[in-house]
Amino acid sequence: MTAARLPDATQATGTPLRIGLAGLGTVGIGVVKIVQRHADLIAARAGRPVVITAVSARDKSKNRDADLSAYAWETDPIALAARDDVDVVVEVMGGHEGPARALTEAAIAAGKDIVTANKALLAHHGHGLALAAEAAGCVIRFEAAVAGGIPVIKVLTEGLAGNRITRVMGVMNGTCNYILTRMQSAGLPYETVFEEARQLGYLEADPNLDVGGIDAGHKLSLLSAIAFGTQVAFDHVELEGIGSVSIDDITLADDMGYHIKLLGVAQMSGRGLEQRMTPCLVPADSPLGQLQGGTNMVVLEGDSVGQIVMRGPGAGEGPTASAVMGDVIDLARGLRLSTFGRPAASLVAAVPAKSATPAPYYLRMTLLDKPGALAKIATALGDAGISIDQMRQINQPNTQDEKAIVLIVTHKAAPADISHALQSFAMTGVLVGAPVAIRIEEV
Amino acid sequence: MTAARLPDATQATGTPLRIGLAGLGTVGIGVVKIVQRHADLIAARAGRPVVITAVSARDKSKNRDADLSAYAWETDPIALAARDDVDVVVEVMGGHEGPARALTEAAIAAGKDIVTANKALLAHHGHGLALAAEAAGCVIRFEAAVAGGIPVIKVLTEGLAGNRITRVMGVMNGTCNYILTRMQSAGLPYETVFEEARQLGYLEADPNLDVGGIDAGHKLSLLSAIAFGTQVAFDHVELEGIGSVSIDDITLADDMGYHIKLLGVAQMSGRGLEQRMTPCLVPADSPLGQLQGGTNMVVLEGDSVGQIVMRGPGAGEGPTASAVMGDVIDLARGLRLSTFGRPAASLVAAVPAKSATPAPYYLRMTLLDKPGALAKIATALGDAGISIDQMRQINQPNTQDEKAIVLIVTHKAAPADISHALQSFAMTGVLVGAPVAIRIEEV
Repeated sequence: MTAARLPDATQATGTPLRIGLAGLGTVGIGVVKIVQRHADLIAARAGRPVVITAVSARDKSKNRDADLSAYAWETDPIALAARDDVDVVVEVMGGHEGPARALTEAAIAAGKDIVTANKALLAHHGHGLALAAEAAGCVIRFEAAVAGGIPVIKVLTEGLAGNRITRVMGVMNGTCNYILTRMQSAGLPYETVFEEARQLGYLEADPNLDVGGIDAGHKLSLLSAIAFGTQVAFDHVELEGIGSVSIDDITLADDMGYHIKLLGVAQMSGRGLEQRMTPCLVPADSPLGQLQGGTNMVVLEGDSVGQIVMRGPGAGEGPTASAVMGDVIDLARGLRLSTFGRPAASLVAAVPAKSATPAPYYLRMTLLDKPGALAKIATALGDAGISIDQMRQINQPNTQDEKAIVLIVTHKAAPADISHALQSFAMTGVLVGAPVAIRIEEV
Repeated sequence: MTAARLPDATQATGTPLRIGLAGLGTVGIGVVKIVQRHADLIAARAGRPVVITAVSARDKSKNRDADLSAYAWETDPIALAARDDVDVVVEVMGGHEGPARALTEAAIAAGKDIVTANKALLAHHGHGLALAAEAAGCVIRFEAAVAGGIPVIKVLTEGLAGNRITRVMGVMNGTCNYILTRMQSAGLPYETVFEEARQLGYLEADPNLDVGGIDAGHKLSLLSAIAFGTQVAFDHVELEGIGSVSIDDITLADDMGYHIKLLGVAQMSGRGLEQRMTPCLVPADSPLGQLQGGTNMVVLEGDSVGQIVMRGPGAGEGPTASAVMGDVIDLARGLRLSTFGRPAASLVAAVPAKSATPAPYYLRMTLLDKPGALAKIATALGDAGISIDQMRQINQPNTQDEKAIVLIVTHKAAPADISHALQSFAMTGVLVGAPVAIRIEEV
């Protein structure tokens, strides 16, 4: 046994790990507070002190909710990476180009480790950054980039490392989940709740990052890379935001025992890697169905472990800073992992596959209320090989326009068969407007 | 930047990590299967091969569901620890004395790392073993000891390391949860379902380990040590098994919107460390309330992260072996942690505190059905400072014995006040038999 085998954590008075913190918004200030409040606790756990030596943000004069006087100030974040008194660059500025990307590249060039909350940066440039970091002997950790305070990167990369991962699912954008749950509880249309969310400050400057599913898609693409050993392939994520989710569907689905969630699913089949981030129905009484407001949930499935479900806060100062500090303390303890859990050079290019996994579907359509209309729809489904689990016809008593809303929940059907049936519906001549089809995921 | 800074995982053809596996029951064979099935996957993730070199069990001739022919056989598990071709001893034999303890001590003496699924061993001897291991430069990991496949030790020790942990809760014995959910769904009394569980092989050889709450108490005591930086204090866990949970209470609680779970709670207050593993009522529609059968759930609360909930399989070959392999791969990757997340010498002796945290309570009692009986009970509650949230009186129409069942859900009350009220009830002279009081936990 040699001294090198001693756990780091027994060296309680070891060399401090020195953070250069880029970004002093909500998350950055959250990191400052934890480092200051829990200095002793963290030193005991990490086996060495963890300190901040330098910080960077655009405006030094801005009033911030923390005492930063002990830290060197760098107006240019890239200067952090060059400082001799910085071991780890913590990047919580955001943005997938510009200063965040430049800082990350500068940190790698300077041989500094990086802890980041930046899902967009890694979704767009993660593979190249991982290659560069590993060539330079640097570590990139990004727990805070996915699902806020839930340590899902750690669980997937480390805790389940003995598993072939079979599927990853998740509700990972709190703003979308807030909007969908608020629409349902208040019976309000999308546009109204969207405006509420904007006024509450829940939306990104570009709201499409949230409601277009892009932010959640970024997160899913990072989980996919770890889960399946593939190069990050955000461009291949089948993305559909929540802007087309109507209050009618939310209400009608609820009547049939389902809630609508913006749900990510990634799985590897013989055909390739399926990644989708789309509105789905989930059983109302399931853990996913019960998820309220900004809470996130991630489901991980492995060949040995079966299914692990994790729920927690998806954003906010405390939870996101908690995730950042988990990564920092890992580095202080000497844990050095490849970015996506195996050497970047060993990650294979993902072969994208359109989703072919059969699932039940929710179909809503408006029919002309005349004899034989419903039979034509049922025939079109039957011809596509799709059988019906539930059907409801809702006549609209207060209208004189002889239309009926028909809701159908199918048994499991392949997505291609559903597409085929929808095309056939159009040719029946009994449909008013376009039908709605939403996949049902039963976790 | 030096060679020492390269992540282990880039060294894909590094020195193999060699396992000596003690115990070839369900979990041991699960470990063999993962190592054999996923050799390439694990090597890619760990940056080096992980192999089994030697195994040990009592009976070599026993027919087992795996090919062990490539491994050296040691009938005496202690001999594994001495082998030059073993880096990590994996102990999945069980038992808190005897061979498991002797093997662990021998491994430490030989400077070998240890991965164990043995909650009983660590609950009874964890502090001493941790001190010895750290003095010898060895690592002890025990993910598989708590909550089966859920990586809760990792999440608590690493992912949430930046948090002051405020509370830990969990349903962590699948057999008890099976019995309680089966009683409820089938309307069967405890004794009947206990016999079913025995015949299904769900019970330990000493069933009191399960139904007495001891196994779950062991697990809670390990989580407490990590969460609060205290020496493992299983002896201080307030233990109450499920043997006294009646089908009447399960049914009546269900009518009032609650399910009964064997729930562990650990929290640190100014008075000391509260640890209890007792039957509790939880809201039927809460994640804990919906937990079915052998599934486990752990709730972790930290000052920054808020609340993280994890759900997964609590036992079984695959899930438990998954947890073992997570620890083994951590070691292969070079992660070396103190047993309880900080140096054992820095863990403080826990000051045990009886639970004083107020909670609502469910009370069931049988009263003589005569004027003023209920008033006496209500007065006794009022005198103890306890107010009533819900009350139901259930007269028993088919009996002639002039008794009534009274159910009360209180507002939050201190446990001591509840005890005081129960004593007062006894002096009213209107009670038939002893009242039942069960704490309600609202997660």
